[in-house]
Amino acid sequence: MSYTAPTDDIAFILERVAGLGRLEGRPGMDAFDPELVAPILEEAGKLSRDILAPLNAEGDRIGAQLTADGVKTAPGFAEAYGAFRDGGWMGLAFPEEFGGQGLPKGLALAVMEMVHGANMSFGLCPLLTFGAIEALIAHGTPHQQEMFLPRLISGEWTGTMNLTEPQAGSDVGALKTRAVANGDGSYALSGQKIYITWGDHDMAENIIHLVLARLPDAPEGSKGVSLFVVPKRLVNADGSPGPRNGVTCIGLEKKLGIHASPTCVMEYDGATGWLVGEENKGLAHMFTMMNSARLNVGLEGVGVGEAAWQTAWSHAQERKQGRAEGVEGPAPILHHADIRRTLTTMRAHVMAARAICYACGVAADLAETADSDEARTAAAAREDLLTPIAKAWSTDMGVEMASLGVQVHGGMGFMDETLAAQLYRDARIAPIYEGTNGIQAIDLAGRKVARDGGAAMNAMLGEIHDTVREARATNDPQLVQVADRLEAAAGALDSATAWLVDAMQSDRQRALAGATAYLELAGDVIGGHFLARSAVAAREENARQRARMTALAGFFAETALAEAPGRVAGITEGGKFAIEEGEALFDIA
Amino acid sequence: MSYTAPTDDIAFILERVAGLGRLEGRPGMDAFDPELVAPILEEAGKLSRDILAPLNAEGDRIGAQLTADGVKTAPGFAEAYGAFRDGGWMGLAFPEEFGGQGLPKGLALAVMEMVHGANMSFGLCPLLTFGAIEALIAHGTPHQQEMFLPRLISGEWTGTMNLTEPQAGSDVGALKTRAVANGDGSYALSGQKIYITWGDHDMAENIIHLVLARLPDAPEGSKGVSLFVVPKRLVNADGSPGPRNGVTCIGLEKKLGIHASPTCVMEYDGATGWLVGEENKGLAHMFTMMNSARLNVGLEGVGVGEAAWQTAWSHAQERKQGRAEGVEGPAPILHHADIRRTLTTMRAHVMAARAICYACGVAADLAETADSDEARTAAAAREDLLTPIAKAWSTDMGVEMASLGVQVHGGMGFMDETLAAQLYRDARIAPIYEGTNGIQAIDLAGRKVARDGGAAMNAMLGEIHDTVREARATNDPQLVQVADRLEAAAGALDSATAWLVDAMQSDRQRALAGATAYLELAGDVIGGHFLARSAVAAREENARQRARMTALAGFFAETALAEAPGRVAGITEGGKFAIEEGEALFDIA
Repeated sequence: MSYTAPTDDIAFILERVAGLGRLEGRPGMDAFDPELVAPILEEAGKLSRDILAPLNAEGDRIGAQLTADGVKTAPGFAEAYGAFRDGGWMGLAFPEEFGGQGLPKGLALAVMEMVHGANMSFGLCPLLTFGAIEALIAHGTPHQQEMFLPRLISGEWTGTMNLTEPQAGSDVGALKTRAVANGDGSYALSGQKIYITWGDHDMAENIIHLVLARLPDAPEGSKGVSLFVVPKRLVNADGSPGPRNGVTCIGLEKKLGIHASPTCVMEYDGATGWLVGEENKGLAHMFTMMNSARLNVGLEGVGVGEAAWQTAWSHAQERKQGRAEGVEGPAPILHHADIRRTLTTMRAHVMAARAICYACGVAADLAETADSDEARTAAAAREDLLTPIAKAWSTDMGVEMASLGVQVHGGMGFMDETLAAQLYRDARIAPIYEGTNGIQAIDLAGRKVARDGGAAMNAMLGEIHDTVREARATNDPQLVQVADRLEAAAGALDSATAWLVDAMQSDRQRALAGATAYLELAGDVIGGHFLARSAVAAREENARQRARMTALAGFFAETALAEAPGRVAGITEGGKFAIEEGEALFDIA
Repeated sequence: MSYTAPTDDIAFILERVAGLGRLEGRPGMDAFDPELVAPILEEAGKLSRDILAPLNAEGDRIGAQLTADGVKTAPGFAEAYGAFRDGGWMGLAFPEEFGGQGLPKGLALAVMEMVHGANMSFGLCPLLTFGAIEALIAHGTPHQQEMFLPRLISGEWTGTMNLTEPQAGSDVGALKTRAVANGDGSYALSGQKIYITWGDHDMAENIIHLVLARLPDAPEGSKGVSLFVVPKRLVNADGSPGPRNGVTCIGLEKKLGIHASPTCVMEYDGATGWLVGEENKGLAHMFTMMNSARLNVGLEGVGVGEAAWQTAWSHAQERKQGRAEGVEGPAPILHHADIRRTLTTMRAHVMAARAICYACGVAADLAETADSDEARTAAAAREDLLTPIAKAWSTDMGVEMASLGVQVHGGMGFMDETLAAQLYRDARIAPIYEGTNGIQAIDLAGRKVARDGGAAMNAMLGEIHDTVREARATNDPQLVQVADRLEAAAGALDSATAWLVDAMQSDRQRALAGATAYLELAGDVIGGHFLARSAVAAREENARQRARMTALAGFFAETALAEAPGRVAGITEGGKFAIEEGEALFDIA
């Protein structure tokens, strides 16, 4: 089985749990009509199922190739990109003034979940283009916006983000690429960038690179980094693509997965670029688009997890081994208790991650469009808080679910040709790029929790307690039990948060040694909260949906939420050994 | 960095924790002198580091190839096998009467950990040969033993296990290969077997296949399966290899990992074989060698986990990113708290799994050689109890640690050429073969826990409480804290065991839906117990070893053991949703 977009689940989480409807009538959302959600998801579902998913296996097998004419994409990718472009999918959530459709980011991200689930390699091209568009909207000059945005937003051109150099990965400030003023307002960029996703390809007639580089007189480190826009082809006065610029893909990485996504070594050889935003503020400017890129990577985890669940579920219906009660002859393995347990684990985790990501996306929309300053500030704090969790928790989840998906397939899951094995390889990059999950945990602990004294997390905990009350008020014994588990888990997150806020002041190294465990706990509790909310909301749905959402919330409550209180020690005490016993553990002199 | 066998850690766990010394002077262990352990581990360490590890990357890249002359192994493998054979490694733990060295299985398994860690693909060849040898020792006729055992034990020939057919995986009883008596005491076997590890190769002049097949009048299902021995080359009267038999490798699987290990489709076309043991008892006979094969697969998890830890540790020393206190200029990432946390996680889990596996191996030796019937029975029960845990917990651990190893490498971990990426691919098969980890969990719940009313597990819990007392008696505050955590965790395992024994009677499906979670809890608690015992034993070692073992036990206690009480609900309550809500969760009509 290939990928079929779970449009009903997506619509349910988007509308009933993340609250997309709250965006109706907001400034800048004139085009948004909640009635449009279903048909848009339907169309995106068709694109992902009929056009993108069928290319996924061959894309993996053949991959992108570097030729004398640049990067040649895998068979069918250019045509599929044409369908994506012509469907107007690139501009869904961008402003109408630049040719976008002015719809919510939350909706565009739901569409991207489907794209990633069908073909993660393909999805990376729009993912990076979104980042370039956002950087230009936020920091570009009117001339730059006019020159690049309409064709990026229409999908005629695509975009990239150029940060990494061999010595500068997580430590972006160590980069060496140089930009020298040409005297005409433009700059000449020289240097080498690595790991540039979709840095070159044959699917669009121009590629707009957003590039971090150093001006000659720049301070050392991260305070001397500026942002530039460098097109592959210079742009003629009429907006059409002109001659080639001095930027070339000189190599493709051979990777564990996402073979159809070209990961380029880019050579800048006096390439013409223009400063975006202020000198030496490149890192800050880059971060404005990082939130949405990180959230979008989180959705890769959701998409891959969904695909892993679907293929495992499908295999479990087809593969017959052993006997089961009520089944004549060899039984589909779906009837075996252990397989069912695994599939339930997969479905619950994917749904929880989906809810975290969509809630983050809707918060991003509200951060721009809510009624009051106060509401916008609160929404921005929620977006900031959820972003590292959405990125890290969802992508770790994607890897784990892909691994479980292989397991359900048994020996067949280890064979090259199965989708399960591809997903296991593809999924593994998502916890690494756009800031490793360790970086996300440090971001959560430092910027998102300690900096405001835990206020944003406490606001989240307040909502969790609302959910506890709502679930309890149903008087449904299953939901009351979920409420009890959720309440205890929220208490654990509350304690851990208080410890973290304090420890980030008093013993920063030890606090940071608990950061990943803290993020994992936060993801479990917040994910369990959204599943509980789903189960409450599903009481107004049909019997099957109600039973499903109650079972997923119940399963998650008895596993992840029930474990939460026991995980506080791992955060508060577990880290000290790594810090204090470096000599014994790692032979550090 | 490549693989360097951790001979000190291995010797420490083997002698001080698993109690290898208890085997001295036992019947059949005449050759065993504890003084030999260090030099044997030293030699095995050289073999693994100098001969096997250097072939691992190219073995992955080139793999085994099927040619007109049969399977050609990757460059250097035949020579490496020659060194393995000439070193006498195959016969280490087999009886002296057949040319073996009569040393403990526990010691041979420690050697295999190194082999697997250096080159998992290579290690599978002796792993399967061990199984064939054990089947012939246990069930072969004197003539069969004379014909095959000396050359298998010397390593001149290798062995295989042929169970799986396309429709018969976990459900071995569904197999269709047929054996028809030739009238001269031999049988003609016909059928196709898949997933046959090292089913053909060019490293030895003969290959002895142990094959499950059906006699013409056999009952259906698992009660009609018999075991046969089928050599690749028939054996001449003088014991030398004669003409080719009717068994051929007709295909090699293309796999996610272990590329250098040929996974063969074997065609039996009237191949001459001989019945091993009794008619229709093939499955039971096969199970006598399954215990040791399963334990050996567990050691693959340990070996791969160790290799993942080593490569991550090495990378963390070399890779510089960002700043750290007390380090001039860019700091090795080993100085960052989150990386240290990850590395500590890896080291602790590998050590815990190593201890579980070695304890299982020494129990297997004691089951044959202990003083009294009672002691042998108790040791056999311990071996039986620990085998599914050693297999499943260690191989899941191997996958998780390989994934963490990729993560520590950042973007480089996703590149094809890194060992980290290879380990992530290689590790994934171990939870699947020799009985999936789900099958191990069912085996643990049914045969190992419910069948004896929890007696074997309660005996284990009794030892855990001894460790609690010993740790507490040290009055070392760190070990007292470990004792507290271990005691609470043992209480959780005790409750879960009582529930499981009851539920396997009263609601078997629901009990089985908790089986994997039960196995995971058991592995954590027993692993934490062995780490606590290591820390107590290390009080007699040098300061660094003492600090290291205390830190590993402490870290594991604050994480896995502290979580244990919260995981009982996932076993007792978590499974019900998967069983009761199949309609809603999986659209089962």
